[in-house]
Amino acid sequence: MDNYVRIFDTTLRDGEQSPGATMTSAEKLEVARTLAKLGVDIIEAGFPAASPDDLEAVRRIAIEVGAPGAAGAQGSAQRPPIICGLARASKTDIHKAWEAVKHAARPRIHTFLATSEIHMRHKLKMDREQVLERVIEMVSYARSLCEDVEFSPEDAGRSDPQFLHLVLGEAIKAGATTLNIPDTVGYTTPDEFGALVAGIIQNTPGIENCIVSVHCHDDLGLATANTLAGIQAGARQAEVTVNGIGERAGNTSLEEVVMALNTRRPVFNLITGIDTTQIMRASRLVSNYTGIVVQPNKAIVGANAFAHEAGIHQDGMLKHQQTYEIMRPEAVGVTQTRLVLGKHSGRHALKVRLNELGYALSEADLDKAFERFKLLADKKKTITDADLEALVADEFYQPREVFTLDGLQVACGTMGMPTATVRLRGPDGATHTQASIGTGPVDAAYKAIDSIVHAPNTLLEFSVHAVTEGIDALGEVTVRIESKNGHRLSFDTQTETERTRTFGGHGADTDIIVASAKAYLAALNKLLVATRPNGQAEEPAFITHSQTARS
Amino acid sequence: MDNYVRIFDTTLRDGEQSPGATMTSAEKLEVARTLAKLGVDIIEAGFPAASPDDLEAVRRIAIEVGAPGAAGAQGSAQRPPIICGLARASKTDIHKAWEAVKHAARPRIHTFLATSEIHMRHKLKMDREQVLERVIEMVSYARSLCEDVEFSPEDAGRSDPQFLHLVLGEAIKAGATTLNIPDTVGYTTPDEFGALVAGIIQNTPGIENCIVSVHCHDDLGLATANTLAGIQAGARQAEVTVNGIGERAGNTSLEEVVMALNTRRPVFNLITGIDTTQIMRASRLVSNYTGIVVQPNKAIVGANAFAHEAGIHQDGMLKHQQTYEIMRPEAVGVTQTRLVLGKHSGRHALKVRLNELGYALSEADLDKAFERFKLLADKKKTITDADLEALVADEFYQPREVFTLDGLQVACGTMGMPTATVRLRGPDGATHTQASIGTGPVDAAYKAIDSIVHAPNTLLEFSVHAVTEGIDALGEVTVRIESKNGHRLSFDTQTETERTRTFGGHGADTDIIVASAKAYLAALNKLLVATRPNGQAEEPAFITHSQTARS
Repeated sequence: MDNYVRIFDTTLRDGEQSPGATMTSAEKLEVARTLAKLGVDIIEAGFPAASPDDLEAVRRIAIEVGAPGAAGAQGSAQRPPIICGLARASKTDIHKAWEAVKHAARPRIHTFLATSEIHMRHKLKMDREQVLERVIEMVSYARSLCEDVEFSPEDAGRSDPQFLHLVLGEAIKAGATTLNIPDTVGYTTPDEFGALVAGIIQNTPGIENCIVSVHCHDDLGLATANTLAGIQAGARQAEVTVNGIGERAGNTSLEEVVMALNTRRPVFNLITGIDTTQIMRASRLVSNYTGIVVQPNKAIVGANAFAHEAGIHQDGMLKHQQTYEIMRPEAVGVTQTRLVLGKHSGRHALKVRLNELGYALSEADLDKAFERFKLLADKKKTITDADLEALVADEFYQPREVFTLDGLQVACGTMGMPTATVRLRGPDGATHTQASIGTGPVDAAYKAIDSIVHAPNTLLEFSVHAVTEGIDALGEVTVRIESKNGHRLSFDTQTETERTRTFGGHGADTDIIVASAKAYLAALNKLLVATRPNGQAEEPAFITHSQTARS
Repeated sequence: MDNYVRIFDTTLRDGEQSPGATMTSAEKLEVARTLAKLGVDIIEAGFPAASPDDLEAVRRIAIEVGAPGAAGAQGSAQRPPIICGLARASKTDIHKAWEAVKHAARPRIHTFLATSEIHMRHKLKMDREQVLERVIEMVSYARSLCEDVEFSPEDAGRSDPQFLHLVLGEAIKAGATTLNIPDTVGYTTPDEFGALVAGIIQNTPGIENCIVSVHCHDDLGLATANTLAGIQAGARQAEVTVNGIGERAGNTSLEEVVMALNTRRPVFNLITGIDTTQIMRASRLVSNYTGIVVQPNKAIVGANAFAHEAGIHQDGMLKHQQTYEIMRPEAVGVTQTRLVLGKHSGRHALKVRLNELGYALSEADLDKAFERFKLLADKKKTITDADLEALVADEFYQPREVFTLDGLQVACGTMGMPTATVRLRGPDGATHTQASIGTGPVDAAYKAIDSIVHAPNTLLEFSVHAVTEGIDALGEVTVRIESKNGHRLSFDTQTETERTRTFGGHGADTDIIVASAKAYLAALNKLLVATRPNGQAEEPAFITHSQTARS
């Protein structure tokens, strides 16, 4: 057995499915580029049958990230990542997945069907024979379209091992090349999961010519340990997400599995293709775009994970580095020199630093970025990488603007009559101005916006954090809203149910009320585009812009 | 071997040691009460030798939570928890720990010394013989004071097992009753850690009469799995923190270990004394007091951990509950009925609900709380449990107020001249008013406060989140500051180094700028008290108030 563990990233599929993590097509494309740069072997780019938007997002990733010589591995001889699309075990789903991924140099179709008694009885309402027959039929169909087919017996962790061996054996005969073993509900312990994988490898005919994969969930806090147990039992693909985002308590964290294999190489004797120095950047990007925060005590990517490094007065007091440090912060891309630019930095310095951070802006967009940089530098003494990333995200990764913020004026305080006046430019180019009072300045501003926009919604989440240290920091606001009309639902592949779709938005400004208004408008614009009467949620204006911006 | 796993909670010691998690004495007392109600067996209440404040905080917890019939187990026949104090292996430390815990019905002294080559050489500068001798001497001294003595060989995970067996055997002879095995740097895998514990149990003379304990860190995301592996190998005490807070990537999460043992009881065949329905309340309290957020995808206590429950339209579409649910939200205290009170709710309804939430206010304090409740109810249609908890925390769990906010007026917006006017009442009772402009309204308000208070500091962290859903939500602001004078340092027991102490503050208001000002003042007041010339950071005014409030 080889000692290379393939990293299969499902941030864009299982991760994006978690509440509020909805990303725009452009954000997904940027995440895919970042994953390619990180060196993941397979990008599960989405679930194309969910909606025309989802199909289109996967197709764009296949073309722009999965094509030979595409993004990511710029200038290197590296092959592009495999681009994978998920499909339920139905011809329609599989056909759509193929339509989306076929443009990639190395496409993959991933189909699944549940094999546990509880899922077969209550969700599928199928018996064992029917499940087996469907698996054979659908894997064969997928294989007739695509050389690379992955099959997952859903809820494998709670399935009868004998039945699993049978189903997997038939899937292999039907053409599956990767067999993925999901602990769908995060139920197993490392011993159980390792034994399950070992049993599958030992008892499934033909499995020696396939890759065995593991896919764990963190409901009991055991996803990383279970994944490592599966790998030690012989799996050579790990399905993970950046920051461990995903349904419920989330999926296995990419960074934890990769750094455990790296840090304890003598124990595992296994390697991955991940460039670990890109981990922090990927973590920040995914957190910004999904609005899902990373807790300070998160392993590897939490703000405190390397606090011993930053917090201690190092004048000889910390006697030996390794006393309390099992990995170097630099190994995961935590850089110590965070102060980079100031008021007197020029356009060239900005361009160089943005390039180093992975942003290749066109000259026109660089001009725009430089203009915003100078405005910020007037207010703030030092501009850090985090400031630059927030600025670029705010300027270039916003949804198509139906309404734009043209002006905002706020008065508030302990006198108890918070008032906001908002001026928006509408889709017709005309400006609209409204004033409103509220329970606070944000509430007042949102009510004023509502009186112009008229898109009934519920605010589910509102959070602000300072991008950098210091009292003059740039504030980044994340909001998540849910349409009250609810006619636009998203589809959950697991439960086969529809849920009300939620929309996230973010905005950055040194004035947190301005940032709050921007974030709310960004979410509202996403909602407006998604609930347009024709149902086609393209983002043409934005995508054109992005193409210019990133070519 | 019995099947009862003791839960040793170190939220107040190892958890509080993480950057920014500093709590006031009153907050610590409230956390200790909550831990007692949760049913933990041992509360590690602090490190008494760190400072007179720390000693006093542990002493108060020993008296008020650890005494027979004290707090927590109100009305029940349950014994009070063991109250434990940490001490380095020195007579001074052990003496101070004893002074602090001796008032408890069941006191414990916990002392430690490193046994790994890297720690002995670079940190202790001692050889094996010296370490062994010191352990014998200090455990004997601790045992001469206290019947219940715990010893930890620090960095056991990287220690030579033979040497460990020797040291632990001598510690037992010297009187240790609990032997704790720490994976101090979060370095081991579950297989390694389980084998280490099994080896210790097999090879240490006299260990059959002691409790073996495990203490893991989450640097590689394996703390929970390692803890469970240690328990399966025979450990019967698990050292954990609420939400897994702690140094770097944190300690093992109490909630993950307890719920793994509970959910998979047939696998483990072990029980704990934890009342799991108190888990969410403990999680929220610790998050509020420390300002350390819980990520939405955190196992058990994250906002999305049970999202399948809340997010799905349940009209028959989710066919069977257990399809995607391995535990019930109610089992950990996630309640579905979150709307409790409104504008027309009376004082009695508020009192009943506060009691249900665990707050027993005096009549005078209930009046105050009711006044704030009515003000909030005028602004907000429905008041939830989270609103009530934020309100109580804001009203009653604030540090001694050196300066209080008497008035705030703010103007801001896109015109770019954010201005704040602040009126504070100082320690002398006089009011001071200052106006300032800033890069945003928060910066302006903080600059205005600075021009009155004069306590040079750096803002390390600033975050806001909406306590509940809805546009009129109460906003809760958390800040963390560091003194620029830096003459008040905190002591790190592990690295034996001093670090600049940081101070957190929180504030809640429907106006987030007002909440921001309150939070900053709370942190500044903590800083002012801690850096008083006499160095004695008592909080007499507050503690008196709290006594009235909670008796």
